[in-house]
Amino acid sequence: MKEIEKLFVRIVQRVNINLRELEFNVLPYVKDLIPAAQMNKFYAFYGITPHLPLSLQFRNSGLAGSYFLGRCRVTDSLLYKTDIRGDELKKKGDVFQFQNFKIPVSRDEEIVIEDSVLIKTLVHNFSHDPETLEDFSIKDTVSAHYANIHGAPTEGCFLGPFSTVDQTTIHDCVIGTFSYIQAGEINHLNIEPGTVWVRKPGVFNFLYRYPLDQLSPYIYFAPGIAPQGMFIDFVKDRQEAFQRVFEMVHIDQPIPVPASATLDRYAVVKSKTEISENVLVSQRAYLQNATLGKGANAQENCYIINSSLEGNNVTAHGAKIIEADMGRNVFVGFNSFLLGRPESRLKIGKDCIIMPHTIIDVRKPLMVPPGHIVWGLVTSREELECNSISIDAMSKTTNRLTKGNLLFEGDGARFVSAFQDRIHHILEANGAFYNCKDKKGPKGHAQKHQNMVFNTIQPYPKGRLEGLYPTIMIQP
Amino acid sequence: MKEIEKLFVRIVQRVNINLRELEFNVLPYVKDLIPAAQMNKFYAFYGITPHLPLSLQFRNSGLAGSYFLGRCRVTDSLLYKTDIRGDELKKKGDVFQFQNFKIPVSRDEEIVIEDSVLIKTLVHNFSHDPETLEDFSIKDTVSAHYANIHGAPTEGCFLGPFSTVDQTTIHDCVIGTFSYIQAGEINHLNIEPGTVWVRKPGVFNFLYRYPLDQLSPYIYFAPGIAPQGMFIDFVKDRQEAFQRVFEMVHIDQPIPVPASATLDRYAVVKSKTEISENVLVSQRAYLQNATLGKGANAQENCYIINSSLEGNNVTAHGAKIIEADMGRNVFVGFNSFLLGRPESRLKIGKDCIIMPHTIIDVRKPLMVPPGHIVWGLVTSREELECNSISIDAMSKTTNRLTKGNLLFEGDGARFVSAFQDRIHHILEANGAFYNCKDKKGPKGHAQKHQNMVFNTIQPYPKGRLEGLYPTIMIQP
Repeated sequence: MKEIEKLFVRIVQRVNINLRELEFNVLPYVKDLIPAAQMNKFYAFYGITPHLPLSLQFRNSGLAGSYFLGRCRVTDSLLYKTDIRGDELKKKGDVFQFQNFKIPVSRDEEIVIEDSVLIKTLVHNFSHDPETLEDFSIKDTVSAHYANIHGAPTEGCFLGPFSTVDQTTIHDCVIGTFSYIQAGEINHLNIEPGTVWVRKPGVFNFLYRYPLDQLSPYIYFAPGIAPQGMFIDFVKDRQEAFQRVFEMVHIDQPIPVPASATLDRYAVVKSKTEISENVLVSQRAYLQNATLGKGANAQENCYIINSSLEGNNVTAHGAKIIEADMGRNVFVGFNSFLLGRPESRLKIGKDCIIMPHTIIDVRKPLMVPPGHIVWGLVTSREELECNSISIDAMSKTTNRLTKGNLLFEGDGARFVSAFQDRIHHILEANGAFYNCKDKKGPKGHAQKHQNMVFNTIQPYPKGRLEGLYPTIMIQP
Repeated sequence: MKEIEKLFVRIVQRVNINLRELEFNVLPYVKDLIPAAQMNKFYAFYGITPHLPLSLQFRNSGLAGSYFLGRCRVTDSLLYKTDIRGDELKKKGDVFQFQNFKIPVSRDEEIVIEDSVLIKTLVHNFSHDPETLEDFSIKDTVSAHYANIHGAPTEGCFLGPFSTVDQTTIHDCVIGTFSYIQAGEINHLNIEPGTVWVRKPGVFNFLYRYPLDQLSPYIYFAPGIAPQGMFIDFVKDRQEAFQRVFEMVHIDQPIPVPASATLDRYAVVKSKTEISENVLVSQRAYLQNATLGKGANAQENCYIINSSLEGNNVTAHGAKIIEADMGRNVFVGFNSFLLGRPESRLKIGKDCIIMPHTIIDVRKPLMVPPGHIVWGLVTSREELECNSISIDAMSKTTNRLTKGNLLFEGDGARFVSAFQDRIHHILEANGAFYNCKDKKGPKGHAQKHQNMVFNTIQPYPKGRLEGLYPTIMIQP
């Protein structure tokens, strides 16, 4: 058995040990998902920029096609086409406010990945666990395709395809396919597929469950088969365009890019796309006939097709926007799938919050009125009624709200302000508010990522260590 | 002043201090040769293969366009499009025979480059200095375009363009333009341009000097100007073809390559080129309408154009063969320039030794008879008479021989056998004698370099550290 196969077996065993109380066996889910032969087909790469502290360490790991930025340590792990974005790590000397605690950060924060298998997973921070400010750790964890681990330390977990853990510390949990969890800290839970759970303990609790029979045409995952459904087909249909950008060493900007914006060279840009000031387009984003207004962003694994974004729009990791017109300040959360059609376009009014993991799939034109929150599965006007609420009405909720499959308990105003604060932070961190005329205002990723260059790394091509990378250490 | 400029100034000062007795100032020669802006234009790269011990360390250095293989440590240095090939380094446990000494190698040998500027230089081993078996060191040294440092530890030296130091330990020396030195150990010498000096102290001494007025159309170098002449024009005319191979991440083999041969993906291959079994074509070699017979090799920076090599031919680093037919076992030494023309082809008979730094430039057909040694400048049949001798005749020389600008003293037979042993070693190391039918016989670079992959590295793109690389450490 080659070393890479031994490593895979060992990681799976470690995860299974962590999940023993849940009686969950990871192996049948993942055993065929990354054949060893795939692990030396794609180069991994990391970004270098003068704006970010740099520290990378790779030991005894396979990294096929993965991307790294910032400070990250990977040991005894297999990362397949995974993005590790450490551009919001805390710095030595920062002070982290948590409730009444002011906690000093004692050294530069680092993403630490050990004994884990991450498949096409997006790892980003900024993490909110006050217990571990210096290490953002992913340990004994297996994640499947297009999972997002966002500021969420994980230990002993299995994350299903298109699942997201967001500002949540998780121990020994199974996160079901397409589930979104933002819940503070959770332990020993087996989260059903299609769960959207946003909780601030003692303040609010938002819980939605997809009807599984209606979710399965979009995404379905079971032991022994690869993930399948419309999400997978959609991504596969567009894979070839990415091959081209990965094959070239240098790529000229395919369209004009303002001085205050960044278009990553590993993004795909198709015809008639326009990029305005302060726009951030990240690697593995896909733009086709897309108009991005000032301060809009398009994050990793997102797709924006035949659509316009008016400005200050967030298109979070893995979100897809097709045949849609988005007003100003619209937020589209992780892995949402917004599918209009040429004859039935989707319009989202300004200031709307499309919750993470929302599916809107319409065959008649649909307009989401301004200032609304939308969640869950929406395929018609009636379902929109059932799966949305105005921000005003939500802010007035003080106790309990049930609507369709949603149960909300707690303080609606604090739920709204938590989201709005978060969106403001995202826009600011991405550089949407930068004053490009006077070159004032806070610089963000859109300005700081411009002068990035990329190094490529490859594994041993043959022999016992085939598919594993040599030990690589990068320091400033 | 940016850090890279400070580093350049500091290195030049260190070399000048070493060369103070010679009253030689390096600065005017090199100050405009690598403008800081060039230093972040080209990626550097290193090879990974299961067959070679791997250890690389880069600290506070610029590496633009340079290539690394094997074990190498670069500190406080500027390497511009330089090749560091550590595939013949000694290993821990080897025993090095030197005269009557059997010296154990106590740890894996490493190429150590400190406080040096190397421009388009080729560094290869294997080094023969019995004093420093574990470190092959290049320190306080500046080398200009297409210099070769071959198994030659250097300290406090300046190497002119197209010069070669070969199995020679040099301290505080200036090696003139296009000079070739293989002399054991030398100190505090200022070698005139166009010197070809092969010495084994107490055994033989071969000394040829080019007439400088006849050398200058080929290569000329003076303070304040870039190197110029036919050598430079020749290389520049073919630069564009290399840009293409560096722009692609993957390149399919442009022609069929036998299982026992290696064609490096960073070589240029133009129309009608044929590669036989056991052939090695290294990175930055250029082949155009070239036929390489079994066991022939084409080393770094060599050009083979409209020419055929019958088999077991060595085309050493930087050698150029144009419109020529080479018999079996012909050796063409470093930086030689063999220029036939379509109407006046050059034929070299089998078993010939074309000494390093030989120029043959003919406008009438010329045939070098088999079994001859050729040196110096040959533009006609008469000059060939004057600048060649049969191996038989040379072997009978027992004391002193003068021919044209050549002075030979010592034991001709030992001179011949030293060369022949060396050529045999080169062919063996390159895998020319591998038995590809039975998969027997010693494997060499032609067989071992096949499964090589390449990682690319880039410097800081902007800011104070622009052009310098982060600290990078690669271990197995």
